Amino acid sequence: MVKLDNVTEGVLDVINDNKFSQTGAFNLRENGTSICHGDSEHIKIKKKTDKPGIDIYIDGKTDGEAVYIPVVLSKSGMTDLVYNDFYVEDGADVRIVAGCGIHNSGCNESRHDGIHTFHVGKNANVRYEEKHYGEGNGTGARVLNPVTNIFVGENSVFTLDTAQIKGVDSTVRETNVELGKDAKLYVTERLMTDGEQKAESNIEVQLNGEDSSAQIVSRSVGKGNSVQTFHPNAIGNSKCQAHIQCDSIIMDHAEVGSIPEIRAKNIDAAIIHEAAIGRINDEQLLKLRTLGLTEEEAEEVIIQNFLN
Amino acid sequence: MVKLDNVTEGVLDVINDNKFSQTGAFNLRENGTSICHGDSEHIKIKKKTDKPGIDIYIDGKTDGEAVYIPVVLSKSGMTDLVYNDFYVEDGADVRIVAGCGIHNSGCNESRHDGIHTFHVGKNANVRYEEKHYGEGNGTGARVLNPVTNIFVGENSVFTLDTAQIKGVDSTVRETNVELGKDAKLYVTERLMTDGEQKAESNIEVQLNGEDSSAQIVSRSVGKGNSVQTFHPNAIGNSKCQAHIQCDSIIMDHAEVGSIPEIRAKNIDAAIIHEAAIGRINDEQLLKLRTLGLTEEEAEEVIIQNFLN
Repeated sequence: MVKLDNVTEGVLDVINDNKFSQTGAFNLRENGTSICHGDSEHIKIKKKTDKPGIDIYIDGKTDGEAVYIPVVLSKSGMTDLVYNDFYVEDGADVRIVAGCGIHNSGCNESRHDGIHTFHVGKNANVRYEEKHYGEGNGTGARVLNPVTNIFVGENSVFTLDTAQIKGVDSTVRETNVELGKDAKLYVTERLMTDGEQKAESNIEVQLNGEDSSAQIVSRSVGKGNSVQTFHPNAIGNSKCQAHIQCDSIIMDHAEVGSIPEIRAKNIDAAIIHEAAIGRINDEQLLKLRTLGLTEEEAEEVIIQNFLN
Repeated sequence: MVKLDNVTEGVLDVINDNKFSQTGAFNLRENGTSICHGDSEHIKIKKKTDKPGIDIYIDGKTDGEAVYIPVVLSKSGMTDLVYNDFYVEDGADVRIVAGCGIHNSGCNESRHDGIHTFHVGKNANVRYEEKHYGEGNGTGARVLNPVTNIFVGENSVFTLDTAQIKGVDSTVRETNVELGKDAKLYVTERLMTDGEQKAESNIEVQLNGEDSSAQIVSRSVGKGNSVQTFHPNAIGNSKCQAHIQCDSIIMDHAEVGSIPEIRAKNIDAAIIHEAAIGRINDEQLLKLRTLGLTEEEAEEVIIQNFLN
């Protein structure tokens, strides 16, 4: 077992909920290199030979297993670009826990760009969890620009659970999904920005297969002078159903923009979206304050409740 | 009174609901020139000297009066560009009925671009109605690209009622609105496309004034191979409220896109949007058919009901 330093341990605890251990199928990338990895009976991880990153092969007999592939950047001024490809065979049931944490205690920008591509076969069930987090008292920016490409085969279910907890100065998220026949997509996106942080999230879902469906729920809180823009886009190319919902709480001097796009190209495409931006609920705030909480504590309770 | 030809009379009946008469304040533009006009006690119309178009002065004592300013294009292959400016004084209550009809029986494109600008003072009430319509058995396209700029002063109400009835081959609508303190905007947009028609509507509302509000309701029906795109955008720059709702029925091989954008730049901006695209309600259709209507008749009833 590889000995990890305190900074890496601390970051891993946050992005992987204290669950990361060097057992089963896993790969830990630290400051641009894979420092430890393991395979399991059904999940094999191979280092790419043509570019940075790994190929993860999940066989059809995988049944509820989890694979951890966290990334930690603790060197200030580093730019890390990685390509991870996931090959999920027909019938597999898998949970993939990614996540990236940047600890920047220097004055230079630390940046991680993860390009993740999922090739999902038929009748599979994939849950992909990803937490983004920044920390460190340096003045250097913590930047995360993930690109996620997802191809979902016939009758498969793909669940994308993505959260940007805090401390990320700048992010541009690009998520592209193509759904086959009877394929289902569930996206839950949670995002919090503060200070001078900027966040942009673009999600494009092509509902290509008959009876495919997509549900996107995005919840965000903008504090300080931060700026957020959401642009989920559902395109119905066949008989399909999609529902997009974006809700944001705006605080302080933050700016939040929401541009959900829906496009029906087939008479049997049924697409709905809803979005709302508003301030924190004053009645809830008052109620919690009468229970003895300070204004800050009451706000924190409401925000965590809203995001979870 | 100027004698009008049958084509112009027929088009006017459609776009002005049989209400146009050469009395009170009015201006009729036919094939690029104003062919008749009249003033009233409180509403004066002056021809522009620097460019095509008119200035319409509506004084503060105007109380419920209507002014008609229709445009008819019956010459095939003609491009008509016109600038109309409306100066609405504090306290005026006025109804402005515009509308443009193109009769194209030739093989060349007929096009009308109306640039309308509204300068609305305080405590005024303005209702602006506009119907767009195309007819004629020529192969030449009927094109309408209206630009509408609206500045609404303190405590004024502006209602924009716009409808594209049928027969318009291509349209790109640009509507820009700035709202002052306590100003209210109501927009109702109705649009029907068929065949190879294309329609795009962009509405940007800047809610600048404290306690300003905007309500945008857009309803559309896409038939044939037609393509529609809606892009309403509400930007909350102060304490304000906005609600955008877009509903579309998709039929045949039509394509409908809806991209309502909301952006809150102030903690007290509350903005909501909702949109839905789907096919015609099958239950309603069945019900009407059991009452003896043909499928076409039943569809027509549902569509007219949805648009009105």
